[in-house]
Amino acid sequence: KIYRIAVIPGDGIGKEVVPAAIEVLDKITQLDGSFKFEWTTFPWGCDYYLETGKMMPDNGIEILRGYDQIFLGAVGMPDLVPDHISLWGLLIKIRREMKQSINVRPAKLLQGLPSPLRNPNNFDFVVVRENSEGEYSESGGRMHSGQDEIAIQNAIFTRKGTERAMRYAFEMAKTRRQHVTSATKSNGLTYSMPFWDDVFAEVAKDYTTIGHTTNHIDALAAFLVMKPENFDVIVASNLFGDILTDLGGAIMGSIGIAPAANLNIERDYPSMFEPVHGSAPDIAGKGIANPLGQIWTGKMMLDFLGYQELGSKVLNAMEATLAQGIKTGDLGGTATMREVTDAILNQLS
Amino acid sequence: KIYRIAVIPGDGIGKEVVPAAIEVLDKITQLDGSFKFEWTTFPWGCDYYLETGKMMPDNGIEILRGYDQIFLGAVGMPDLVPDHISLWGLLIKIRREMKQSINVRPAKLLQGLPSPLRNPNNFDFVVVRENSEGEYSESGGRMHSGQDEIAIQNAIFTRKGTERAMRYAFEMAKTRRQHVTSATKSNGLTYSMPFWDDVFAEVAKDYTTIGHTTNHIDALAAFLVMKPENFDVIVASNLFGDILTDLGGAIMGSIGIAPAANLNIERDYPSMFEPVHGSAPDIAGKGIANPLGQIWTGKMMLDFLGYQELGSKVLNAMEATLAQGIKTGDLGGTATMREVTDAILNQLS
Ligand SMILES: CC(C)[C@H](C(=O)O)[C@@H](O)C(=O)O
Ligand SMILES: CC(C)[C@H](C(=O)O)[C@@H](O)C(=O)O
Repeated sequence: KIYRIAVIPGDGIGKEVVPAAIEVLDKITQLDGSFKFEWTTFPWGCDYYLETGKMMPDNGIEILRGYDQIFLGAVGMPDLVPDHISLWGLLIKIRREMKQSINVRPAKLLQGLPSPLRNPNNFDFVVVRENSEGEYSESGGRMHSGQDEIAIQNAIFTRKGTERAMRYAFEMAKTRRQHVTSATKSNGLTYSMPFWDDVFAEVAKDYTTIGHTTNHIDALAAFLVMKPENFDVIVASNLFGDILTDLGGAIMGSIGIAPAANLNIERDYPSMFEPVHGSAPDIAGKGIANPLGQIWTGKMMLDFLGYQELGSKVLNAMEATLAQGIKTGDLGGTATMREVTDAILNQLS
Repeated sequence: KIYRIAVIPGDGIGKEVVPAAIEVLDKITQLDGSFKFEWTTFPWGCDYYLETGKMMPDNGIEILRGYDQIFLGAVGMPDLVPDHISLWGLLIKIRREMKQSINVRPAKLLQGLPSPLRNPNNFDFVVVRENSEGEYSESGGRMHSGQDEIAIQNAIFTRKGTERAMRYAFEMAKTRRQHVTSATKSNGLTYSMPFWDDVFAEVAKDYTTIGHTTNHIDALAAFLVMKPENFDVIVASNLFGDILTDLGGAIMGSIGIAPAANLNIERDYPSMFEPVHGSAPDIAGKGIANPLGQIWTGKMMLDFLGYQELGSKVLNAMEATLAQGIKTGDLGGTATMREVTDAILNQLS
């Protein structure tokens, strides 16, 4: 079996870590022998924009539809291209047009990785982030100017989008430790979040064997620092999920390690696999970027394609490499990206 | 000089920690001799609501206007009174009607207090939270029902409110370490936050000696865990400030210690001093609540009234008490609230 993957390395360190992760994924298919990846790389991103005035060609979405999945590095060069152009012209555009309505982001205490927490218990949670609407609804405006200016941002939540994320979270909890926590802020945001709470309470009724809790986002952010081991699956709105998953990266030891998957759960269009970290222009091109976030993201693609056992092999190889102390600077190590990648390839031999 | 203070212990542990903090503040005035507090207690809150159907009397705001400042404990008993009633009927109502447009919340590594961070450098930052509008604008609605329901929450930012918070932050930075960080999310929220960024850039021009940085809220939340020592003054919208300050409490060691001040900076109505923590119904009435958040909040009232030196005495007494290991359960200690309070009173003798 051949999977046709559209590869968008994007900007900055994306161009380095994506090829590294592809080496690891190719190694996995060699070991297995039953399937293989066919990679097609698209040079879209900020460089492309500076040349053409567009982040991707007009028929970019159409092109991507012809692939099985999308493997993306990082997007953004804020010094050269404003974020709202680079992100909404590529990353968020793909999320929307491919109906990747669920963003899944695990966080887990890894062997050999020094968490900034003093005494971390063995945490292992997954944030299911609503990925299509909510605070990112792109509805709003600005009016008047100077001292009179006002800006309005409208967060729009539909029953369908909200319920879809919650059901996905409950289904995931069935395969894990049987608990879902909902991130709310119904005490401050008195329209969207009471609605969110109502839908959560209703969906929970269909999952009588799964425990469920609701926490306000402020308290929940604090809990991730104080007792991350208390969480199994967390379901959150687009914005709250964004914040909680960077926190997840932080308590793991580095944003550079956190993986993510933008899932089209109906599987009618490709899903997109992209790590949580950004393009990190400050360290790009130096060969010192941490490839683990991108490699772990590759593991999520394996999982989504049904190769969970192979996915576990990747994560085990990462942990074994960390345990040997082979890690990049952001994790307190001195290894280059190449050395980390080679060590993981070695573990897989 | 006599300051007339309206006291609202509120709900849960508020009823315990407020009297403790008042003892400390009275002790301070005895030491000083030049002024004193006259406390008038109002039994408003959820019990009051269960009896009268209102969180405070109809003329509550009018009554409070007759006082110099407001000293509040905590509000909320979610099992008995829905949050949107208890909070919007008392806490947020007072913030709004008294034009307490700035919420100030410091976070600082305290001597003797075990932070959950492994190797915390000596952090000391203040979050200036816009307290009157933004995501808490109480604009929005719900329509249709069942599978068709949608909810909209409108975040409204005015130039006046935004600029006021930012100028306050820059003025504060002048008296501190000369740096302001702005919490944004202009890559995802494409109307409100680009506006926020524009105002920040403009205000910064008036403070050429003060450094300034802009971080997205997701990255900023992660930075507070990874390198909190990098921050001096952080200016944030209502919602972002809410999240960052709970994180501030978490990295200090407990939300139970984090203080806050809702300031009317024009001083035409009373300001309100209330800690970050909530009413904690689960531990209320047991004498084990941590009084430090409320006591530190009392220090912020002293500061606001111009008694910064006395304010420092309170904080020093708190740190000395912590250094002796006298602390409540949330901080890993075994002391009761009474023991902690007595130790602080002792330090002040
Ligand atoms: C109780 C709630 C409405 C409140 C807020 O979000 O402002 C609280 O979390 C706080 O930070 O004071
Ligand atoms: C770059 C930005 C728009 C994006 C988001 O907020 O979704 C990023 O932070 C992420 O989490 O993937």
